[in-house]
Amino acid sequence: MVLLRAHLGEALRRARQEQGRTLRQVSADAAVSLGYLSEVERGQKEPSSELLSAICMALDLPLSRVLTEVAQSVLVAEPTRLTVVGVGGVAGKNAKDIVDAA
Amino acid sequence: MVLLRAHLGEALRRARQEQGRTLRQVSADAAVSLGYLSEVERGQKEPSSELLSAICMALDLPLSRVLTEVAQSVLVAEPTRLTVVGVGGVAGKNAKDIVDAA
Repeated sequence: MVLLRAHLGEALRRARQEQGRTLRQVSADAAVSLGYLSEVERGQKEPSSELLSAICMALDLPLSRVLTEVAQSVLVAEPTRLTVVGVGGVAGKNAKDIVDAA
Repeated sequence: MVLLRAHLGEALRRARQEQGRTLRQVSADAAVSLGYLSEVERGQKEPSSELLSAICMALDLPLSRVLTEVAQSVLVAEPTRLTVVGVGGVAGKNAKDIVDAA
């Protein structure tokens, strides 16, 4: 099962690291605890919509951009809806495998 | 403040209605209570990642597609980062106004 919070956490962590900022800095700017932000980034906590917005604001990152990135990474992770019949089919493979193979 | 749960709820409700299905049908397929699904659709409850996946599965809708739609509607709702200087600027308008005006 593809879990939104895991992909969301990864996207937030990536954004923070690309900015060269620490958990401490971003958590202070977002007014959330460092432990909470760390758990969100590791996909262990579901951020409320309010706190997600606060984290995005602290990262100076529009929520829409975060969601677009998350949609992309979820697309790669989720099983395809393809049903391939015949020898050499790709049934059971996920989108990433198919993209890699293409 | 743009709230993810509001946009997510709208996207889920729209998908269900486009399929001509009732809250009762989808909540049964997703194994969530009707009241819970209704609250999620109205943006009053944050769905856990597990229940969001179950609802998407019940709607036969990839999570990535839901997130792409949500990213679009959040983009329209969120304030732009534009700072326009000069007469006739659009500072303070949101993305939808700018798109409408274009």
